[in-house]
Amino acid sequence: MPETHVRRRASLRSVFQATELDALLVTDLLNIRYLTGFTGSNAALLLHEGGDAHTVFCTDGRYTEQSAAEVPDLERVVDRASALALAARASSHSTRYARSGFESQHVSVEQHETLKHAFVDIELRRAPGLVEGLRLIKDDTEVQALRDACAAADRALAGLIEAGGIRAGRTEREVARDLENRMLEQGSDGLSFDSIVAAGAHSAIPHHQPTDAVLAVGDFVKLDFGATARGYHSDMTRMVVIGEPAAWQREVYELVRRSQAAGSEAVRPGADVAEVDRAARDVITGAGRGSEFSHSLGHGVGLEVHEAPSLATTGVGTLSAGMAVTVEPGVYLAGRGGVRIEDTLVVRDGTPELLTLSTKDLVVV
Amino acid sequence: MPETHVRRRASLRSVFQATELDALLVTDLLNIRYLTGFTGSNAALLLHEGGDAHTVFCTDGRYTEQSAAEVPDLERVVDRASALALAARASSHSTRYARSGFESQHVSVEQHETLKHAFVDIELRRAPGLVEGLRLIKDDTEVQALRDACAAADRALAGLIEAGGIRAGRTEREVARDLENRMLEQGSDGLSFDSIVAAGAHSAIPHHQPTDAVLAVGDFVKLDFGATARGYHSDMTRMVVIGEPAAWQREVYELVRRSQAAGSEAVRPGADVAEVDRAARDVITGAGRGSEFSHSLGHGVGLEVHEAPSLATTGVGTLSAGMAVTVEPGVYLAGRGGVRIEDTLVVRDGTPELLTLSTKDLVVV
Repeated sequence: MPETHVRRRASLRSVFQATELDALLVTDLLNIRYLTGFTGSNAALLLHEGGDAHTVFCTDGRYTEQSAAEVPDLERVVDRASALALAARASSHSTRYARSGFESQHVSVEQHETLKHAFVDIELRRAPGLVEGLRLIKDDTEVQALRDACAAADRALAGLIEAGGIRAGRTEREVARDLENRMLEQGSDGLSFDSIVAAGAHSAIPHHQPTDAVLAVGDFVKLDFGATARGYHSDMTRMVVIGEPAAWQREVYELVRRSQAAGSEAVRPGADVAEVDRAARDVITGAGRGSEFSHSLGHGVGLEVHEAPSLATTGVGTLSAGMAVTVEPGVYLAGRGGVRIEDTLVVRDGTPELLTLSTKDLVVV
Repeated sequence: MPETHVRRRASLRSVFQATELDALLVTDLLNIRYLTGFTGSNAALLLHEGGDAHTVFCTDGRYTEQSAAEVPDLERVVDRASALALAARASSHSTRYARSGFESQHVSVEQHETLKHAFVDIELRRAPGLVEGLRLIKDDTEVQALRDACAAADRALAGLIEAGGIRAGRTEREVARDLENRMLEQGSDGLSFDSIVAAGAHSAIPHHQPTDAVLAVGDFVKLDFGATARGYHSDMTRMVVIGEPAAWQREVYELVRRSQAAGSEAVRPGADVAEVDRAARDVITGAGRGSEFSHSLGHGVGLEVHEAPSLATTGVGTLSAGMAVTVEPGVYLAGRGGVRIEDTLVVRDGTPELLTLSTKDLVVV
């Protein structure tokens, strides 16, 4: 959809005026994908304030055909040293590129040393986060991709449960592989991240990697996983108990569920991100379990599975309509078991749009 | 294996003496894994010249248990802002850390701005590539992991072919998923990278992403894929033809095969990396197809699927025993089909050790 990328590049140019930049050298591959549609592994983009006619894209010879298909609407240069090739191009018209920005949050100190010398007679300015600023607010194309990714994950989990895939005797690894295959069968392009399947005491480890540990009756099973669609990530955590839940399991689950609901309710335009974290955290702290909720409440999700904004006690800023965030409180009882419940939501005027639709009733298998 | 990590940290300290550093702030997660065994997603390490007793590791609350298990032999601090927490620690003993290095090839210009202020009364020096320099030469633990990863990929491909998994009527995506599942069944921890399965004219695109295109009789099918073992990556490309190969397919295949053999023969200690590229490239250029070999010959492989050294016309440096590299020439006829043959090898005195053992005869199914 070239028109989507044309519109995004125009939005970026409108940001330029405030920063007094003539051009921006974009080197982060996700930002390049956002602005051009290119999905390869090496590229740079020199986006000029004056419009797409002065904007140049560069990739290497492996991607000549792919870039012609994906980026039909920009001038393309083929060179392995993509950023340096564009620096040379800019230097041959140094007046036009007199004040050029670079993505100083991505460019390393060493790369900057090289770039400084490659931009001749050009003032190379730190310009962090300009594209990420746009990416905070998802457009319709992006929200639809997030919906599709979340729906694939929902269907995969439903299929796994229905087929009896979570049962005593299987290993964490087997359950993870089954779940991942189901996401791919449901149309996921890939995996959002390495799936977490954590059974029994392992569920108390917030980021546990699946092992050959065998699921047993009485176990909490924590599943934290995600599908992808057109580069966009889903992220969801659900809990299953094998056999009749114990009283402590029900108690902890209900506590986290109330916290998760309180956090989700606090997600609205204008809400301070630290306040959203607090809304969920207060429920857990109020039950005397504050120290067992050892991470932040959530994060933005989009082309990256973890991106801005951060819903954390130390988070800064407010939510706006169109942001996509996770809400994922947890309580972890070391050596015993833990609970996390996580949804992906889009901030809307009024109630947020819930993208992960799997039930949040405790699933008993 | 703590002793492996102890030894690697000692090797890094021996590099310090030449750089006159008191300490190195390691922030790259793969370098941290190499030096400590930690596999989580947030950490920093402040490695002191004086020994492990003065060396501090930091991660956040999600990884308290995991880091205790994986990094039992170092002092551990728990803080979400891991690098800044270690900077504060160093600043409270600024004499001991008077000249501290940072990984300037990984730290962004913005992060550096923050770190500069966090290291108080300490000279923060650019110290790029120190750990990567060690990682160039694989120790026995690493070579065994590479062998295991390559063996899982070999077994997966053999199983796929034996089961008739590459056949007319299947889509590229189905073949890719089948191959990937077989790698996981064969013990791979994950996927080395997004598998390439490219059929027919798609095989002429060096880095093609699998689509719903259907395999047909007469197609070249290019499979470029890898397994992982304990963080180490395999990388292999093989070609299959469906039905009797055409004369042009045999001709191009044999050309690339001769090139690949010439490149592999040139892999030995002391060889200039550009000369290794040339040894393979000359075969293809000599056949008048030089312009159709549009990428470099190979790359190092280890904790990253692409790492140093680069076997390229523009590559600099020489090979040493213990380096692991790919040799992967290709010839791509746009709109028609292409061939790449790729092995992963370890540089040894004499003949290199071949890790990817699948046949390099053209497979006909």
